[in-house]
Amino acid sequence: MHDLVISNIGLLATATGANAKAGSAQGGITAVENAWISVDGGFITEVGAGSCPSAAETFDAGGRLATPGLVDPHTHLVFGGWREHELAMKLRGVPYLDILAAGGGILSTVTKTRAASERELFDKAAAVLDRMLSLGVTTCEAKSGYGLNFEDELKLLRVVKKLDETQPVDLVSTFMGAHTIPPEYTGDREGYIRLIIEDMIPAAGSGGLAEFCDVFCETGAFTTEESLRILCAGKDAGLAPKCHSDEIDAIGATAMASSAGAVSCEHLIVCDAGGIEAMRKSGTIACCLPATSFYLDAGYAPARDMINAGVPVAFGSDFNPGSCPTNSLQLAMNIGCFKYRMTPEECLTAVTLNAAAAIRRSGSAGTLEPGKDADILIWDAPNIEYMCYRFGDNLVNSVFKKGIKVK
Amino acid sequence: MHDLVISNIGLLATATGANAKAGSAQGGITAVENAWISVDGGFITEVGAGSCPSAAETFDAGGRLATPGLVDPHTHLVFGGWREHELAMKLRGVPYLDILAAGGGILSTVTKTRAASERELFDKAAAVLDRMLSLGVTTCEAKSGYGLNFEDELKLLRVVKKLDETQPVDLVSTFMGAHTIPPEYTGDREGYIRLIIEDMIPAAGSGGLAEFCDVFCETGAFTTEESLRILCAGKDAGLAPKCHSDEIDAIGATAMASSAGAVSCEHLIVCDAGGIEAMRKSGTIACCLPATSFYLDAGYAPARDMINAGVPVAFGSDFNPGSCPTNSLQLAMNIGCFKYRMTPEECLTAVTLNAAAAIRRSGSAGTLEPGKDADILIWDAPNIEYMCYRFGDNLVNSVFKKGIKVK
Repeated sequence: MHDLVISNIGLLATATGANAKAGSAQGGITAVENAWISVDGGFITEVGAGSCPSAAETFDAGGRLATPGLVDPHTHLVFGGWREHELAMKLRGVPYLDILAAGGGILSTVTKTRAASERELFDKAAAVLDRMLSLGVTTCEAKSGYGLNFEDELKLLRVVKKLDETQPVDLVSTFMGAHTIPPEYTGDREGYIRLIIEDMIPAAGSGGLAEFCDVFCETGAFTTEESLRILCAGKDAGLAPKCHSDEIDAIGATAMASSAGAVSCEHLIVCDAGGIEAMRKSGTIACCLPATSFYLDAGYAPARDMINAGVPVAFGSDFNPGSCPTNSLQLAMNIGCFKYRMTPEECLTAVTLNAAAAIRRSGSAGTLEPGKDADILIWDAPNIEYMCYRFGDNLVNSVFKKGIKVK
Repeated sequence: MHDLVISNIGLLATATGANAKAGSAQGGITAVENAWISVDGGFITEVGAGSCPSAAETFDAGGRLATPGLVDPHTHLVFGGWREHELAMKLRGVPYLDILAAGGGILSTVTKTRAASERELFDKAAAVLDRMLSLGVTTCEAKSGYGLNFEDELKLLRVVKKLDETQPVDLVSTFMGAHTIPPEYTGDREGYIRLIIEDMIPAAGSGGLAEFCDVFCETGAFTTEESLRILCAGKDAGLAPKCHSDEIDAIGATAMASSAGAVSCEHLIVCDAGGIEAMRKSGTIACCLPATSFYLDAGYAPARDMINAGVPVAFGSDFNPGSCPTNSLQLAMNIGCFKYRMTPEECLTAVTLNAAAAIRRSGSAGTLEPGKDADILIWDAPNIEYMCYRFGDNLVNSVFKKGIKVK
């Protein structure tokens, strides 16, 4: 007798595999018709077809599609304020640097984040997570990076920890003090980098407050040399490397980060063949952010080239108040089809198994297989083509997190 | 004592005006802080600021944004089946004509629509309308055009009439037998055009089953001469003209339709200065369809040029199973900002007052003013910049239709 059986699944679609690092070959989807899933102790215990076993509780999926819960491997979840008033400025063609000079841009978010209490930040992010869960996200990465001083970066990491303990979405914490140089260190970049390396990273690592260390390696942010120092310091403190690379200028960030053993490189809009080859060699996940390109009306990462080269592609929402104010991985999948020209199978893998691999959760999340967490979505859709073809609405019918129905 | 007062509106934002044809100058938004709205007999009776009058029922908007209900002036609401399996073909680069030759494309929808009963079509469209209402649409146009014979075109119009009578969204019916030439008339276009003109249009008009007559004036569909004959026959039967024009090829459709007195021209991706001038002269609404361009990864209508020329721009969802399977005008507003570079004020006007004008409902819908229907949205947003900046989620908190809270 199982704890729970989800019965009458018209079609079960999932990537398969539990490799903790590499993700799957893109698009290798297993599809089972007339399926059921048994759940015991919060884990998937069996996936079958046809007549289903008995259980203490049965949920009838009504012939709908079932997939793994979505995994969002790239968000800037916790911040103060919003920046909607910059939209009209951007539409009038005001350059970002002028918005920044007028007190807008990332520095306005830093100011509001520093001014906000832990409680305020917690409540705001909890409301966002509630929406994300409703949109099908059951595991989510969250980066710091709007504090930019010792106290406020640690404050953000504590908020993520508390959120992880108190609501259903599993959170994975990334320290990203190297988001930009804060105003008080203008003219003393080295001073800020030393603060990151000598104070922030050790505190984030020893306090168990982060699992990854990310850096914005870009013209105007951190150079490849600075980024490498920061990522190596992170590794020394037990934080696995990630990198915002090749978003705007091709300065060699992807090759640098891959050589440092980055678990994922992220953005990758201007990533070239050398960057792709570097990721392939190092087993790095390419974390593309389709909604950001859509919001900024910018270029799109060469995701097909990555797939063709054998690099696993994941999608993140990049939820943040400046360049991507969305929390929908469903729309990311749509854009993945329409703009990256990826297939529905490839897009589903990108927001499940490969996304889990990008945050080292592919042992527990990202597929519907025995032994994995029972993070399961039931969709108002008959198949994954439909899921990627319909857009602009939330197609998630029901969400199970570790076997508990949370929507 | 009013029937209803909606109190504690942090910001009320609305276009103003009740001109039954021309729509407003684009973007002239009235914004009232700390506002309230009184409703009596289903109509707005007063809009004020500060302390609000007493009422039998009070709804506290919690400081949120209020706008008029959204008006969707261009949908193909009623059809059988879906066409999700064509997505993968399109992504592989299979040309539309090859999909059509393989039994796909519009003709597969025609086959499924003809095979469906009125009841099946009603239930399917009712479910879509329920989602649209939840996404903030309180008035919606619906075109026929997947029947393509006398019996099945009339069947579609009857379904729209019955839907209008039985659910909250106000429907406006458009006859569009001239959607394409059906297979049984291949080689006899004139025979089908005569069927439209001599049989279908008179039946649609005399039966009170439609208010507009639309035609797909395009290479491969109907020529400008054929379209003009059809629109004139429609006018003779009391159906006001609309036209699918300048979607793919610039064959002069917009000028033709404007000269025929079209209330709206729709799509307009390749509309040139001559087309814009024709619409301006005739007081025709430019109904742009941003989500279709997004789905097809095609070009975008020159909406800014239209606004600069003084042509009122409206947005429709273009909901249909082939080229735009979305029912979200919220996403249309996002795309209007990001791709047309329209301001949030202009986008709000495009989905309210100008959309109402495009279906001759600007006397009753599209603004928050005394005398209009009490179709009112409360948003999980503080202002319209936020509404256009956040994307990928449903920001509608509450929907009032003729003063009744339906969400």
